[in-house]
Amino acid sequence: MSHYQKLVQHAQKIANFNHLAAISGWDQAAVMPNGGNEARSKAMAELSVLIHQLNTEPQLSDWFHEAEQESLSPIEKSSLREMKQRWQQATILPKDLVEAKSLAGSKCEHAWRTQRKQNDWNGYAQNWQEVVNLSQQEAQIRADSLGTTPYDAMLALYEPGTSSQSLDVVFENVKTWLPNLVDRVIEKQDKESVIYPKGTFARSQQKALGLKAMQFLQFDFNHGRLDESVHPFCGGVPTDVRITTRYDENDLMQSLMGTIHETGHARYEQGLPTSLAGLPVGEARSMGIHESQSLFFEMQLGRSPEFINHLSAMARAEFQAEDQPAFSADNFRKLYTRVEKGFIRVDADELTYPAHVILRYEIERDLMNGNISYKDVPELWDQKMQSYLGLSTKDNYQNGCMQDIHWTDGKRILISNSQPNENKGKRLKKHNYRGGCMQDIHWCDGSFGYFPSYTLGAMYAAQFMAAMKKTVDVDGALRNGDLTPIFTWLSDNIWSKGSLLTTDELVKQATGEILNPAYFKQHLKERYL
Amino acid sequence: MSHYQKLVQHAQKIANFNHLAAISGWDQAAVMPNGGNEARSKAMAELSVLIHQLNTEPQLSDWFHEAEQESLSPIEKSSLREMKQRWQQATILPKDLVEAKSLAGSKCEHAWRTQRKQNDWNGYAQNWQEVVNLSQQEAQIRADSLGTTPYDAMLALYEPGTSSQSLDVVFENVKTWLPNLVDRVIEKQDKESVIYPKGTFARSQQKALGLKAMQFLQFDFNHGRLDESVHPFCGGVPTDVRITTRYDENDLMQSLMGTIHETGHARYEQGLPTSLAGLPVGEARSMGIHESQSLFFEMQLGRSPEFINHLSAMARAEFQAEDQPAFSADNFRKLYTRVEKGFIRVDADELTYPAHVILRYEIERDLMNGNISYKDVPELWDQKMQSYLGLSTKDNYQNGCMQDIHWTDGKRILISNSQPNENKGKRLKKHNYRGGCMQDIHWCDGSFGYFPSYTLGAMYAAQFMAAMKKTVDVDGALRNGDLTPIFTWLSDNIWSKGSLLTTDELVKQATGEILNPAYFKQHLKERYL
Repeated sequence: MSHYQKLVQHAQKIANFNHLAAISGWDQAAVMPNGGNEARSKAMAELSVLIHQLNTEPQLSDWFHEAEQESLSPIEKSSLREMKQRWQQATILPKDLVEAKSLAGSKCEHAWRTQRKQNDWNGYAQNWQEVVNLSQQEAQIRADSLGTTPYDAMLALYEPGTSSQSLDVVFENVKTWLPNLVDRVIEKQDKESVIYPKGTFARSQQKALGLKAMQFLQFDFNHGRLDESVHPFCGGVPTDVRITTRYDENDLMQSLMGTIHETGHARYEQGLPTSLAGLPVGEARSMGIHESQSLFFEMQLGRSPEFINHLSAMARAEFQAEDQPAFSADNFRKLYTRVEKGFIRVDADELTYPAHVILRYEIERDLMNGNISYKDVPELWDQKMQSYLGLSTKDNYQNGCMQDIHWTDGKRILISNSQPNENKGKRLKKHNYRGGCMQDIHWCDGSFGYFPSYTLGAMYAAQFMAAMKKTVDVDGALRNGDLTPIFTWLSDNIWSKGSLLTTDELVKQATGEILNPAYFKQHLKERYL
Repeated sequence: MSHYQKLVQHAQKIANFNHLAAISGWDQAAVMPNGGNEARSKAMAELSVLIHQLNTEPQLSDWFHEAEQESLSPIEKSSLREMKQRWQQATILPKDLVEAKSLAGSKCEHAWRTQRKQNDWNGYAQNWQEVVNLSQQEAQIRADSLGTTPYDAMLALYEPGTSSQSLDVVFENVKTWLPNLVDRVIEKQDKESVIYPKGTFARSQQKALGLKAMQFLQFDFNHGRLDESVHPFCGGVPTDVRITTRYDENDLMQSLMGTIHETGHARYEQGLPTSLAGLPVGEARSMGIHESQSLFFEMQLGRSPEFINHLSAMARAEFQAEDQPAFSADNFRKLYTRVEKGFIRVDADELTYPAHVILRYEIERDLMNGNISYKDVPELWDQKMQSYLGLSTKDNYQNGCMQDIHWTDGKRILISNSQPNENKGKRLKKHNYRGGCMQDIHWCDGSFGYFPSYTLGAMYAAQFMAAMKKTVDVDGALRNGDLTPIFTWLSDNIWSKGSLLTTDELVKQATGEILNPAYFKQHLKERYL
């Protein structure tokens, strides 16, 4: 057996255990009774330790060395590259640092739960200082290995191949037009009237409606499920993708669009190449590309006028609301494109969202590169919020730099974090990208480098749509209600590629060019102006 | 760290992985979409291999040797005994034999699915011959180690401490009165009229009713759930017990009593000593004792007139059937105690069930001890069915010795059987006793020695009830609807003991004597005559 083959077998073994981690994590979040949590956490921590051991077995070093001398096909070369990258990320950090960071992160997060309510920046900063310090050490070690800046080394955990140099260019561009665009749109929307559907919308009916939307989006129910959890996420494995939503019986709109978003993640997973199952090269490309798929579904498709026509018709039928103005397609469209400036990122709309991300990107970049201190963060936050969204967070830490809630606050987490594990916040989060929607990665536990993925996803989605429209009659497909041509394009160009290509290669092959924020700008202007 | 402590840590590690196996197994049976099965089976097989490796690590031999020299408390001594027994059972068989038996079992079972429909004994016998042969080899190896007969060595996998010598005495006794009793009861019931509830009983209402019954039986919903599966079972872990049922919208009665049966298994699991969690000594005592708890709930409590009063009231309320004679307590009682002679064990009622078990016991005992050949089975089956139930299975193999369906026939199994693993059908089935209800252990894959557990359970249950009544006002508790005193007795005498005592010790401490079938006979006569 060649060394490459040995590595393949080893990766498939790890994938089997990751499968069980994903299902146990879904169970913990979606169906496990509270009393089961302690024993479950222990069991999942045991599995984490095992997976870590497998990822860092000593013989792997030799195997990679030997495999690189072997004669490999192009696919095998890509596969080896992805396996090696995962291995390097798993082995590069000293165990002490991993453990210290894990402890500091847990301590910081635990106290933050109380401190945030009390707006207690000073208390928070005492713990957070250590998290930042240890994260800087991590970033430096990774940077030395990769030959990049410290921040870029962290970024590579989520967006391999993307540099802050290119992000700077992209985000600086966005900053030149976004604040003004937001103001113009809000001014325009001030004159519009919207009607919020009122009443009680039974969970069972909301669920039925969500399932209809998923069917419309060709979710494969033979390889996945819809369930409920406190914080919606997409989990499971490609052959069995578990998406969740939550229902607010007073709010029809939120859960429905949340389900559509998760369906985008799910179809990417379901569409990954089965011939590469169990190998890193068969997994989703990156956090940003994963988010591009959920946002393609939610923003590009889900909020398009044609799609909203279908959605409003489904909702009218489900709730027998044919004659209610709140359920009209026009009102649905207004509701789903309503723009508002706010403090909280996770509540932000499509248009203001990039401002939240760029703010965080700039701060975490400078923090990791040692250009600013943790002490500077609240003031910078306030300045940037004022500059990008015209809101002040002075002395308002809880809605400023302390806001970023771990969506998994409380007992339910998808990935066990209770064991020292350098995968924490890194490859496992890639592997469980699907966990990305659940775990709002934040600075509290030192997960620096993740935030750009959200806006990269939105931009890629817009670029994919523009490229798709060159060969696919998207509006026609949406109008006649058979989205197959759209999904064929996504499957051919994105899903079936797994991680065979780098992100830049993937985007270039699909659209003819690498990331270009002009498509995003164009999309926003067309939709909102 | 003492060697005993090392063994404890090792056992807890295995328990963590068993936890994940149990939850993944539940998921596979209860919620997994079909398309997820192949990857899941692989992942679970990987986990089986790992658990097997852990159970048979070479250093354990030394550790057991050393630990036996250490100064241990009585509880630790029991714990060591149980750990050692598990280890011995896991290591005793040569790997070749385990693999050969697993292959032969799979082959036999696979072909049986077709052969049973075709009543093809000759085809079946060709494969089964090998299963019997390999099982005899297994029994001999185990017997040599334990110093017992081959059959008793197999029995020890499910009912440690029980010998065929004592079973012979017990079952011979039953045979002297059961056939006659069955005839008398059928004659008596012929004169009664019963009304089968007719109509469509919505799943949601059946589920609500089942949940009410579970609440009445004080199932701890903080440590467990009720779900649906094709074949009802009790799975999960003691801190998170998953029971399942299935609903037939044309049949109200079956699912309800099935839920009560599984609730008995579940409360045993939920009541196991938390201080011994993760150790073999903290697990359920045996298959027979586990079945005694489900049958205590189903037969001793569930079919008692007082309980049926509550049940019929709950059903009347749920289905708004106050005035329907089919829903009267008297009719419910008649329905739930209806006796009928039939070919199929899993469909048998309380009274005829032991006949099915004794027949199988006698055949498997003689088969394992080499006193009969596999070829003799159909004729013996026919003879014994005629003798015990007055039914002939001559040339009717599919309802005779080929009947024993794997309840997991089809894609959904609780425990992955796809890997050679000497735990298969043995300790895993103890650990996942809860799997016992799902997997109708049968001869097709060489699981000889399991059948007596069913009737032992029924007998223990009757004996426990008789003992309980000496100190607990069972009828009063049932009448006033607070069953706490009943559960306190079960918890004190059975559940909280885990595997600290041997079965005989457990039963003697609880009831003042070891197994005595007189209580079972008395119970049946009182209920049915």
